[in-house]
Amino acid sequence: MSSLTVPPPTCLRRPLVVPHRHMFGPGPSNAPQRILEAGAKPVIGHMHPEIFEIMSDIKSGIQYMFQTQNRVSFAVSGTGHTAMECAIFNAVEPGESVLSAVNGIWGERAADMAERIGAKVNTIVAPPGGFFSLEEIEQALIQYKPVLLFVTHGESSTGVLHPLAGIGALCHRYDCLLLVDSVAAMGGTPLYMDQQEIDILYTGSQKVLNVPPGTAPISFSDRACQKIFNRKTKPVSFFLDLSWLSNYWGCDDKPARVYHHTGPITAFYSLREGLAVLAEEGLENSWKRHESAAEYFHSGLESMGLKLFVKEKKARLPTVTTIVAPHGYDWKEITAYIMKTHNLEISGGLGPSVGLVLRVGLMGCNSTKASVDMVLAALKDALKHCHKSKV
Amino acid sequence: MSSLTVPPPTCLRRPLVVPHRHMFGPGPSNAPQRILEAGAKPVIGHMHPEIFEIMSDIKSGIQYMFQTQNRVSFAVSGTGHTAMECAIFNAVEPGESVLSAVNGIWGERAADMAERIGAKVNTIVAPPGGFFSLEEIEQALIQYKPVLLFVTHGESSTGVLHPLAGIGALCHRYDCLLLVDSVAAMGGTPLYMDQQEIDILYTGSQKVLNVPPGTAPISFSDRACQKIFNRKTKPVSFFLDLSWLSNYWGCDDKPARVYHHTGPITAFYSLREGLAVLAEEGLENSWKRHESAAEYFHSGLESMGLKLFVKEKKARLPTVTTIVAPHGYDWKEITAYIMKTHNLEISGGLGPSVGLVLRVGLMGCNSTKASVDMVLAALKDALKHCHKSKV
Repeated sequence: MSSLTVPPPTCLRRPLVVPHRHMFGPGPSNAPQRILEAGAKPVIGHMHPEIFEIMSDIKSGIQYMFQTQNRVSFAVSGTGHTAMECAIFNAVEPGESVLSAVNGIWGERAADMAERIGAKVNTIVAPPGGFFSLEEIEQALIQYKPVLLFVTHGESSTGVLHPLAGIGALCHRYDCLLLVDSVAAMGGTPLYMDQQEIDILYTGSQKVLNVPPGTAPISFSDRACQKIFNRKTKPVSFFLDLSWLSNYWGCDDKPARVYHHTGPITAFYSLREGLAVLAEEGLENSWKRHESAAEYFHSGLESMGLKLFVKEKKARLPTVTTIVAPHGYDWKEITAYIMKTHNLEISGGLGPSVGLVLRVGLMGCNSTKASVDMVLAALKDALKHCHKSKV
Repeated sequence: MSSLTVPPPTCLRRPLVVPHRHMFGPGPSNAPQRILEAGAKPVIGHMHPEIFEIMSDIKSGIQYMFQTQNRVSFAVSGTGHTAMECAIFNAVEPGESVLSAVNGIWGERAADMAERIGAKVNTIVAPPGGFFSLEEIEQALIQYKPVLLFVTHGESSTGVLHPLAGIGALCHRYDCLLLVDSVAAMGGTPLYMDQQEIDILYTGSQKVLNVPPGTAPISFSDRACQKIFNRKTKPVSFFLDLSWLSNYWGCDDKPARVYHHTGPITAFYSLREGLAVLAEEGLENSWKRHESAAEYFHSGLESMGLKLFVKEKKARLPTVTTIVAPHGYDWKEITAYIMKTHNLEISGGLGPSVGLVLRVGLMGCNSTKASVDMVLAALKDALKHCHKSKV
């Protein structure tokens, strides 16, 4: 006869305490009360008509945010990485050629994911802070003949906004699908999925949408579906198999929905609320607001004598700003000081930008002049109080 | 120049309305206010010390619930299916032999998942309502020499509680890992991961724990880790790669945590709260409560003249009860009537049990005499008012 050998942990006797904090790092951003409250509504079933209606609202909201008529638009039950894998797992079969445009961590990760499922992966690499011209992309399309090109719209590790104009049409001339990661940019800067001929596009909930992490909007063009629904092999993941997911989200022609998995019901509530907030403001207003807050922020930084990491003005992400790590300071001391003294998160670099930059994210409700002033004040204070070497 | 072609959807102008409902189907179960409120606390960062402490509390709670000392115990950022794939993707390399014990939908799905990643999959199959003897399992271990055996502890599609005693030791005699799915049973019936020599075990948040779906506790034995951390190939999923996940959850020896993915922060809050509720009541009390509610329910059903689908008493799940679909009735009319008239979810069959059964789940806070009385009254009412054919 067995008996308990592990006692109830005493740590769970303490009530859960979570601090309020200004979330001005590259994400997650702050979730407004309205969105948190939506996510605290009662749980209903994953096959109840009310949740299907909520999912249908989410689909419409995603089509609006992405500016697409794609029928196969929905939210993945997971965070941005799950959406990334959903895109790659479905679009690529083993042995196929994939091209990843690497100008930061996301291109590296996409390459890693595609390699794991047996694709032949090639990369083009730009230095941190850089991006790719249409000529460079065309050259690589000719050389590697990929079935899929991965491009990061908002490279949160380096602060680069990748220009998208012309890439979709170029890919299609070479019979290649275009997959765009817009986790960090979506909603904060113009993007037109259909007009820009993007085949697969995804984002996360926790950036401009101000929804807690846990869901990831994604959309597939007809061209992408054409390839995916005519695969010779099954995708490696049952959970992310687009045939199942598109039925679950009512995006196919089948008369009824079949149980696939239990979606994160309450996370769908908050995602719907985040999309409603965006629809209320209007996409173009949101884009303008992010742009003007970023401009105000960037000029404030420059008047402090700080340098922006991304040289070309038009390639600066309005959502995540990378600042050249102030000379003579330890960046870790700066971020720790600001967190401690101002209860405010800004962060250091990530992947190729570690040690090179400070990163500030002003996304969704955080993209305001007031937030900018708060960050600038905190930075000034930190530069005054943190140790400066006498180099 | 591009311009908006998709207008803001009018459906998002309606405020979100979600009904209160008795969630007495096979899951998700009702989430108490306390747990919903925990999940509505402010978002903090996925690398902040406070979230690491919350994750550490979750690990302790899972070790308690699972009765294990396994260091590699954590919550997958996803639902039960994600945990299933996390287990299989990590434990199995292409070409390896996997054995799935199929007595309902979960064994089928595990087989599907293992096939997709190139395993050689064999199954043993029991009819719906049945399970496997140690002799049958041993026979198959000898015949197929699997590296992994999949067994469903709580088969929610058929209502079977699979006896676990002896299976772990048997597997280890044949150099096979034991993977147990206890999504529907965990917390409602005795289970001792270490003493029962289970190598990989997972559950979902939305059953006995009464936490909204979106996180899935999982644990790996040293024996499982030994195999996984000595793989020759990388797992197909970066997102579910145990080397990354165990670092993210502080289960490895590395000095620092590296950014892997952004976990569902607020879902971790509610998971912690659900584990705290379980620790407060005590596992053994929870098991007893589920058992006595189930006994009371089953005898109530029998005195109504209804038949239980699972013949052997000891193989009946205390969390999910399968009732033989009442003769002469349309099961869909019954569940629809009860939903409409009693605002109460019970469900029909799933997979191999479709058309054969009604399924009632009484899990966590729903496992009470009062809930049983409510279900029995609803069933009586339905049998009185639904159409009965004159066969």
